[in-house]
Amino acid sequence: MDERNIYLTTVPVAEAVERARKALNRDALLGVETVAAHEALGRVTARPVIARCSSPTFHAAAMDGIAVRADSTFAARDGSPVTLRKGVDYVEVNTGNSLPSGMDAVVMVEHVVRADGDAVLLEAPAFPWQHVRRIGEDIVATEMILPQNQTLSAYDIGALLSAGIFEVEVHARVRLTFIPTGDEVLDFRSRPTPAPGQVIESNSQVFAALARSWGAEPVCTPPTPDDRESLKAAVARALDGESQIVCVGAGSSAGSKDYTRAVFEELGQILVHGIAIMPGKPSLLAVAENGKLLVGVPGYPVSAVICLEDVLAPLVAWLSRSTRPARPEVTARLARKLPSRPGMEEVVRLAVGRVGQEFVAAPLPRGAGLITSLTKAQGLARIPADSEGLEQDARVRVELLTPRANLDRVLVHIGSHDNVIDMLGNELMGLPEPMQLVSSHVGSMGGLSALRDGTALFAGSHLFDPETEDFNFPFLVRYLPEVEILVVNLAIRHQGLIVAPGNPKNISAMSDLARTDVLFINRQKGAGTRILLDHHLKTAGIRPDEVRGYDREEFTHMAVAVNVLTGAADCGLGIYAAAKALGLDFLPLARERYDLVIPRAHAEDPRILALLELVRSEKFQKDIQALGGYETTLTGRKMHPGAGLGG
Amino acid sequence: MDERNIYLTTVPVAEAVERARKALNRDALLGVETVAAHEALGRVTARPVIARCSSPTFHAAAMDGIAVRADSTFAARDGSPVTLRKGVDYVEVNTGNSLPSGMDAVVMVEHVVRADGDAVLLEAPAFPWQHVRRIGEDIVATEMILPQNQTLSAYDIGALLSAGIFEVEVHARVRLTFIPTGDEVLDFRSRPTPAPGQVIESNSQVFAALARSWGAEPVCTPPTPDDRESLKAAVARALDGESQIVCVGAGSSAGSKDYTRAVFEELGQILVHGIAIMPGKPSLLAVAENGKLLVGVPGYPVSAVICLEDVLAPLVAWLSRSTRPARPEVTARLARKLPSRPGMEEVVRLAVGRVGQEFVAAPLPRGAGLITSLTKAQGLARIPADSEGLEQDARVRVELLTPRANLDRVLVHIGSHDNVIDMLGNELMGLPEPMQLVSSHVGSMGGLSALRDGTALFAGSHLFDPETEDFNFPFLVRYLPEVEILVVNLAIRHQGLIVAPGNPKNISAMSDLARTDVLFINRQKGAGTRILLDHHLKTAGIRPDEVRGYDREEFTHMAVAVNVLTGAADCGLGIYAAAKALGLDFLPLARERYDLVIPRAHAEDPRILALLELVRSEKFQKDIQALGGYETTLTGRKMHPGAGLGG
Repeated sequence: MDERNIYLTTVPVAEAVERARKALNRDALLGVETVAAHEALGRVTARPVIARCSSPTFHAAAMDGIAVRADSTFAARDGSPVTLRKGVDYVEVNTGNSLPSGMDAVVMVEHVVRADGDAVLLEAPAFPWQHVRRIGEDIVATEMILPQNQTLSAYDIGALLSAGIFEVEVHARVRLTFIPTGDEVLDFRSRPTPAPGQVIESNSQVFAALARSWGAEPVCTPPTPDDRESLKAAVARALDGESQIVCVGAGSSAGSKDYTRAVFEELGQILVHGIAIMPGKPSLLAVAENGKLLVGVPGYPVSAVICLEDVLAPLVAWLSRSTRPARPEVTARLARKLPSRPGMEEVVRLAVGRVGQEFVAAPLPRGAGLITSLTKAQGLARIPADSEGLEQDARVRVELLTPRANLDRVLVHIGSHDNVIDMLGNELMGLPEPMQLVSSHVGSMGGLSALRDGTALFAGSHLFDPETEDFNFPFLVRYLPEVEILVVNLAIRHQGLIVAPGNPKNISAMSDLARTDVLFINRQKGAGTRILLDHHLKTAGIRPDEVRGYDREEFTHMAVAVNVLTGAADCGLGIYAAAKALGLDFLPLARERYDLVIPRAHAEDPRILALLELVRSEKFQKDIQALGGYETTLTGRKMHPGAGLGG
Repeated sequence: MDERNIYLTTVPVAEAVERARKALNRDALLGVETVAAHEALGRVTARPVIARCSSPTFHAAAMDGIAVRADSTFAARDGSPVTLRKGVDYVEVNTGNSLPSGMDAVVMVEHVVRADGDAVLLEAPAFPWQHVRRIGEDIVATEMILPQNQTLSAYDIGALLSAGIFEVEVHARVRLTFIPTGDEVLDFRSRPTPAPGQVIESNSQVFAALARSWGAEPVCTPPTPDDRESLKAAVARALDGESQIVCVGAGSSAGSKDYTRAVFEELGQILVHGIAIMPGKPSLLAVAENGKLLVGVPGYPVSAVICLEDVLAPLVAWLSRSTRPARPEVTARLARKLPSRPGMEEVVRLAVGRVGQEFVAAPLPRGAGLITSLTKAQGLARIPADSEGLEQDARVRVELLTPRANLDRVLVHIGSHDNVIDMLGNELMGLPEPMQLVSSHVGSMGGLSALRDGTALFAGSHLFDPETEDFNFPFLVRYLPEVEILVVNLAIRHQGLIVAPGNPKNISAMSDLARTDVLFINRQKGAGTRILLDHHLKTAGIRPDEVRGYDREEFTHMAVAVNVLTGAADCGLGIYAAAKALGLDFLPLARERYDLVIPRAHAEDPRILALLELVRSEKFQKDIQALGGYETTLTGRKMHPGAGLGG
């Protein structure tokens, strides 16, 4: 089985792009077309543009007032005015009017004094050409107003029309075809609900949206099955069409159903198989016999995006002679260690926001299949091939996926997950000045660590201390003795055992978790829910190794509930809201306080003030109650040590 | 006449925007609509989006290989393999396949050793869940995947489809109508050639292109004449239509034909008349009786753009709940003094590029009518209302109109103008890595000053020294003794008197310039052409005050030629190319060397190397010759002191 991997002899991204540029003849691939100037926004000029008319085409009044001969006003002084006769010495003009023949200056209406009859008085001389827009001041006919290969802006359109240019020769748009493949993928157009083993094909639409944002014209075919002849026919058909680039989604690696390379070899010549970047490695480039570009795009969504943005986008820009907009960059402090395997560049998506005086970047989960790591990221970092990764607190260069100014509107939350936190995120986006809640779910203990390290604006925590029967404060005293903290309750919530509908395994007490026919799904170490579980196991006299599945960890209540829903586990500990969302049964075990833990240093931050105002609003508390499994008696109130569920 | 100005009681831009926000009810103005998820790029969610399906909906193989029960492999060791039977202990899987029931790990194909029959051997244990994408790992059904008011990215579209969301509720697009006004403006749709007193209306199309770039839907009506009833009818019609915002182009000031305010007062209530910013001051905001926004957009193109970008764009973003992308910013050194009138913020457009280690910004001409100051600018600076301007070399914060990375591709040229420089600019844009030539025309002496100050990469110069009969070097010795310089010839060019076709004033020698019936048009002080003129006047024994029009200055050869073409002058001194371009007659007076003057410090700059390679190419020299009035015997050659026209 080993031989299948030999195809992937990776090259750096820059070399992959360069090989494609050398193999393509862009003048032959992409023609020139004529478009109406006023519809040419974003198009790229194919030739220099020469002005047909001057602007203005005449000497024009630049102010409302009177046109005069400057030399007829030279004697005017304060207290010794010059008198001008209408029609002879002056003519009234509005801004934009042509200067009457012989006149060479305009006096603003404010400086003109009415005299007897039609005469006017001036008390100051006019300089030649004052308040006059001279012929060709802006544009001179026959001059080059735009060079070739200029991407036309809104301003350029104004200049074109002003210069009497109504049509402009531009490079044709790059056309690209995307062929999704796979027996398991469902065409989204049929609005499917995937069965096990199936997924809804979405990469083609990410591709299409990206291509449009590059100014290109995408076409997406329906999915092609994992069948060599079908794929070959689809690619051949696309090569016969108008597209200069044909992309095949998935199947570019070396699996037993990966036919992309074989098909590309039949229809052209392989340029690159494998780029030295993770995710994105199984990218494939080839040139077809008719000179068009063939691209094998990896199937995982994050890998696909890297192939599209790092390899395809520069090639489309080069073909179309347009400038590829660069991402803004900032330096940020890394909230967590970021290990990386040496030998290959790695791209890591980051949640980025301002915390105090600096930007903080929290690495998002790195699976190539995690499309939400794309949607949640404000930026990305590149770890070079020769690096083993970055330590916590390292300063990292971040390519931003959002304008830099937006980072000031981001609230970085690190800590425990709760559905109310998601609700809070939605409400923050509804404020007059919307704010974005960026949440990194690392459990309550992880949140406190982040506060200690100064990498979060606040943390959600529900840590129960059995000894004092208090929440959070005993842990703050132990782990954050140096940090002044404000604790505000978000809600009291109900934790319990989540089981399948009807409770088929008849689970009713902690002791049932020790049964050999019960498979448990646990939360990760440091999660408040795990600490709660351990407390209740201890109380019930059960050792962790007696619980089947104790070692299987999930990071959120919802993930635990999904395991139960799908039968991957019989039971897990979680909140009522998660059980309810998926229609599962819930055996209440405990009530607990979920608090917002806020360093005093950030307590007056406008984003925190906005968040607390929201939490204290009646509407928000009603929304919490509507979820079920929550109590809002303490919501929005400042908490004090020792109060437990009494606040 | 004075009372007409009282309308303009200016308010700061931020206050103008705030007044409009307070006067508008955005929920009532802008509805919600449902669109297909895959067509929702750039749209803004009206509600939080809840996942319909999990992703994956099943435990999925994350690698090609075999699915196993992890506990059946625990005994495997190097040299002591475990044997697995096909269909019983393992199942072959490709990436994305559903894990067979009971299996909980995947072993990569590379680590599987084939044994007898269908059996395989493993030499290492598999951990539970290794190489498995677990149910809901990416998205859990019922969880909120996007909040309200999120501008949808390409990635978001992928997430929506993956979560089984095929339609999404979004805020409607903002619709805007623009009504151009003015008796003098010509509808560009009729492809007019303007007569004196007329201009081609272009602001509506700048507006439309900007509005599209904001994600809004613009509608432009044909121009309305300067007539109060016609304007009122047009505005009333637009208010009855679908647009939430109705803009009137020009007529928002206080001239005798400015009816916009009066019409807005009839149809609604004035909110703001006059914003404290130059250009852009005569902007007008009102709220119509039906709650829609009325905007009076100034008529000058630069004023209009400031009104549209600084006032209207934030309001459209606010209405549509989208984030307004912020411009990237850099700090640049100011190439020239930038005086400004205190009392009002001033926006100045700048040519910006990297020179040596820093960014340099050269102010572009500031007329509100100069649309080319928009197209030529890479950035803009804002001079606060309380400032009298900025000194040369001041560090100025620049809002970029182009990505920051582009500034490294900009060649800043300050110096004399020549048509070959424009040609060079066009050719530089045709290079494999296109470069942008940004040219500030301040004359040869101005160019040498810029080199002394380090604000230009190179300067074009054609300074003739009568004493030595040499070009440029005598001036370099005098004005730039400290700077090591490389001088490369661009071309020898022909200077002469430019006169109307047929030479109606019968001008044949310098002595004719002293005739009272001859009106001359001069170049600005410091221009090489002006120095040449002064030399020839002196040789002919003519004093400057004997030349009518000696004080009237233009900054380019083309501008001089336009004055002659339109009869604004009888004669000017300039290059043959300018006369030829406009079909004028040319009386040769002198041949001169136009050189590229390059500080040694920049001689190895990749941009300069590319420029010199271009100048030395045969094709480029042929293109110069085709212009007429040039000789290329020295083009591209390094010049030495004392050689004059011999090189």
